[in-house]
Amino acid sequence: MEAQTGTLLISCLDRPGIIAGVSNLLYDNGCNIIDSDQHTDRDDGHFFWRIYFASRSRAMEQMRSVLAAELPKALSSLSLRWQLFDSTQRERIVIMVSKLPHCMSDLLNRHHLGELGGDVVGVVSNHPDLEPLVRPFQVPFVTIPVEKGRKHEAEAQSLKKLEELRCTLVVLARYMQVLSGDFLRAWGKPIVNIHHSFLPAFVGAQPYKQAYERGVKLVGATAHYVTEELDAGPIITQGTTAVSHRDTVKDLARKGKDVEVIVLAQAVRAHLLKRVLTHGNKTIVFP
Amino acid sequence: MEAQTGTLLISCLDRPGIIAGVSNLLYDNGCNIIDSDQHTDRDDGHFFWRIYFASRSRAMEQMRSVLAAELPKALSSLSLRWQLFDSTQRERIVIMVSKLPHCMSDLLNRHHLGELGGDVVGVVSNHPDLEPLVRPFQVPFVTIPVEKGRKHEAEAQSLKKLEELRCTLVVLARYMQVLSGDFLRAWGKPIVNIHHSFLPAFVGAQPYKQAYERGVKLVGATAHYVTEELDAGPIITQGTTAVSHRDTVKDLARKGKDVEVIVLAQAVRAHLLKRVLTHGNKTIVFP
Amino acid sequence: MEAQTGTLLISCLDRPGIIAGVSNLLYDNGCNIIDSDQHTDRDDGHFFWRIYFASRSRAMEQMRSVLAAELPKALSSLSLRWQLFDSTQRERIVIMVSKLPHCMSDLLNRHHLGELGGDVVGVVSNHPDLEPLVRPFQVPFVTIPVEKGRKHEAEAQSLKKLEELRCTLVVLARYMQVLSGDFLRAWGKPIVNIHHSFLPAFVGAQPYKQAYERGVKLVGATAHYVTEELDAGPIITQGTTAVSHRDTVKDLARKGKDVEVIVLAQAVRAHLLKRVLTHGNKTIVFP
Amino acid sequence: MEAQTGTLLISCLDRPGIIAGVSNLLYDNGCNIIDSDQHTDRDDGHFFWRIYFASRSRAMEQMRSVLAAELPKALSSLSLRWQLFDSTQRERIVIMVSKLPHCMSDLLNRHHLGELGGDVVGVVSNHPDLEPLVRPFQVPFVTIPVEKGRKHEAEAQSLKKLEELRCTLVVLARYMQVLSGDFLRAWGKPIVNIHHSFLPAFVGAQPYKQAYERGVKLVGATAHYVTEELDAGPIITQGTTAVSHRDTVKDLARKGKDVEVIVLAQAVRAHLLKRVLTHGNKTIVFP
Repeated sequence: MEAQTGTLLISCLDRPGIIAGVSNLLYDNGCNIIDSDQHTDRDDGHFFWRIYFASRSRAMEQMRSVLAAELPKALSSLSLRWQLFDSTQRERIVIMVSKLPHCMSDLLNRHHLGELGGDVVGVVSNHPDLEPLVRPFQVPFVTIPVEKGRKHEAEAQSLKKLEELRCTLVVLARYMQVLSGDFLRAWGKPIVNIHHSFLPAFVGAQPYKQAYERGVKLVGATAHYVTEELDAGPIITQGTTAVSHRDTVKDLARKGKDVEVIVLAQAVRAHLLKRVLTHGNKTIVFP
Repeated sequence: MEAQTGTLLISCLDRPGIIAGVSNLLYDNGCNIIDSDQHTDRDDGHFFWRIYFASRSRAMEQMRSVLAAELPKALSSLSLRWQLFDSTQRERIVIMVSKLPHCMSDLLNRHHLGELGGDVVGVVSNHPDLEPLVRPFQVPFVTIPVEKGRKHEAEAQSLKKLEELRCTLVVLARYMQVLSGDFLRAWGKPIVNIHHSFLPAFVGAQPYKQAYERGVKLVGATAHYVTEELDAGPIITQGTTAVSHRDTVKDLARKGKDVEVIVLAQAVRAHLLKRVLTHGNKTIVFP
Repeated sequence: MEAQTGTLLISCLDRPGIIAGVSNLLYDNGCNIIDSDQHTDRDDGHFFWRIYFASRSRAMEQMRSVLAAELPKALSSLSLRWQLFDSTQRERIVIMVSKLPHCMSDLLNRHHLGELGGDVVGVVSNHPDLEPLVRPFQVPFVTIPVEKGRKHEAEAQSLKKLEELRCTLVVLARYMQVLSGDFLRAWGKPIVNIHHSFLPAFVGAQPYKQAYERGVKLVGATAHYVTEELDAGPIITQGTTAVSHRDTVKDLARKGKDVEVIVLAQAVRAHLLKRVLTHGNKTIVFP
Repeated sequence: MEAQTGTLLISCLDRPGIIAGVSNLLYDNGCNIIDSDQHTDRDDGHFFWRIYFASRSRAMEQMRSVLAAELPKALSSLSLRWQLFDSTQRERIVIMVSKLPHCMSDLLNRHHLGELGGDVVGVVSNHPDLEPLVRPFQVPFVTIPVEKGRKHEAEAQSLKKLEELRCTLVVLARYMQVLSGDFLRAWGKPIVNIHHSFLPAFVGAQPYKQAYERGVKLVGATAHYVTEELDAGPIITQGTTAVSHRDTVKDLARKGKDVEVIVLAQAVRAHLLKRVLTHGNKTIVFP
């Protein structure tokens, strides 16, 4: 049997013996740890572990059964949470976007170059404008307009489309609509958003205008998981770039775009490689 | 006569002919423009000009009289403001600091190396702790404690000391007291402060703790002119640096320090070289 | 008549009165200076001036005649060089590229968003692979293969194509062929190249492999004008990004791409806005 | 018994079971892994592991004996190398410096603030100039002049001083003398140097002058371990900062200093926290 690889994410309350317990379990089942990263939250004693490993003798689904049976014994911790990701099961990404193409095009390009770590399986937009830019990538483009007072219907349609595309990750790549709590609960899977400011500065609409008016000397971008509170979800990645008195609001938007693109791409890649764990309203992002 | 140099700062409403008018005036008076930077605010049409020039035939004080007589004619603008700085008149800086030495030590070092563009003539602190670090630089260190309920007296004492030292610029290098509006009005000259966050995020006390709690992925610092509203004055320079889930509040403070030091030094140097002009609550910082 | 705008670039040996002379000339001809940047080389006394101005009473071509007649009188300098660019005459860019699309796609996107400051009028590649990515932008894509020992013919064909497209700027966006001295002389107009290292480190082939082998902790990119000596032309912009021991050569290439994209875009935009002047083997890049 | 902490560095050829083996060994001896970082070199299969752990039942010296006896059994690898560092045994740093104080002052300040992770026990300089700046830190300052043709004697004197101070790490904080191979071999312990360029660009003397002449748009600094070949040792940390056509050689040096300070401080701290492992001419620097 050829070696299969998988990623095991574990979190539990820290106590002696966790590493020995789990590494024995993997070793005894013919697995070799290729990469391992851990973190302990000093405030509350939670322990987080990411293990990328190769299994030589068991299929990943067999390992899942082994882990389900043995991990609770090995860790005997009330707060144990774990997930196993089979490397052959690539994530299926749907990009939601409005009229600004830069983040969408960048993600499509990285997908095209095989650098994203997952597959873009669809683009959903509330406007038809960007369809031509998606065409070369042979990814379906769906227009779902959001009419005033009828957001609920649009969201139901989006949800149906996400399910149809067997989407596992939604990326809001400058999607200029706020998703309702109902949508978020119905969807129930991760959503990564790019906000065009260095949060928590400039929450909400028109952050570049806000930045211009405050006279800041840098603009930035923040990729975060979407939660019900606007622009308040766990931050994954952030970046900034210098601006000056010469720059108009339009210049800030132009310069900021370059940061948005990179910050979002880093967050999406980290998520797809299972390098991001959430803990309360924060993230652990393994390098 | 040896050439003297000076810096002329002009602001007025933009209209054709300003540059021709002023450059003729300088040329006709034997001055040569060495460096020139300009900016026009697109929102309100204000024009800002910094001219660094050499005068071959007149002393700088004579040029001041010439400009006072001729500039209003040449520019004939109701909103004209101008200032002339003689390069031989170096600014006299007083650093105010509490217990954290990093920004103070950095400014003293730069002064010592002749890189600051002005002279540090005193250090005022509400604690005696940092005196030994100041001693090698042969700059007077004055302790003015700020006792609860007696801030007014401490401020009066500080004011007296600033006058005694013929201070022209106050730098708050992690001075952990909020200066009162009374003090600011009585002092009436510029004060540069370093705030340990990328403003407008994390205004007020304990910004690193606020940053830790929000789970940001970068920390920063902001140098700004002090106004009556806390942490809301015109921003001069800003910077950020990456942090991660590994970092405790203490780590954020440690990493942030390196940004504070550089951001403050850049702001102070820019101010001393007359590269900073304020316009409303914003700054123009010529490179 | 509606105001027309143009950019005047001047270089000459510095002497008193230049600014007064030229600004009078412009003022007397009904022009208003909107933006002005200057630089004096301290080593050899050369003065460089970029003036962006509006002409209210004369067409830009009339101003060209006025300047041709009057500038030499006003400046009376043996070393005077000047150029006038009419803002309505947009530059015509041809991108040359091989198989890696990232820089090309980025420039096409910026052109599409109207942010480039010039028009991409064609893409020339030695491989047909990238044609589908160019199609949405409605820009002609031409494949000119470079066969071993027949580079001369390929270059002749490229040259013909550049002329046909009335190209004014060639951008090498990861074009993996070295252009011959014959080609450079025949073409005679500017060529901007992106080299995937922080020059002068890692000149020549496979810079990421060289960087990996040296064990550097950052990779970078350099945009420069092409001259006959490989990777030795005047540098316009540079950037770097952090890498670590975890990164393979492939990872360096992946991370470096993000720097290449931004560094090249900044250089091309600066060139198109006439913000770049060359002086010997260096550039002056006005902000 | 109160818990003691230590850092265990291991390197060996990778094979299944290493992590299980060592973590069992630690667990069986009452140790808890607090922090763990690992890396496998994809080129040659070497495995590197840093474990920061607490021992509840054994003193660190007892653990050393246990590890000496058991590690070779647990790992049974011909290429095994390991080191154990007791956290209570702080490293003893000697700074060597010439006339430029910035890096030295910065390290002394960090030591003073308790942020360095080791103790500065002496400063050795070939000039007496910086003595006053060292005095407030109560660290011995020794002048050992290096006279032309008598470097050998100076090095012998330095060596004696390093031994007398029981130094474990030498930091060259802008020490403008090249240390001989004889000295390096006699000393035999690590030396960290700061070179004022982004190596491998601008090896050797006057890198800022070299950078100015090449017309680069960024300057940088590199902290590396010293080996016999000049500026060619394993790189620990690097950084760059933007410069422009306005900057003279002196300006490059001034701007570069800020990078030197931070890059060196990061390297020294990483070394002191046992986060740096060397592998051939490269380093692994755990975050």
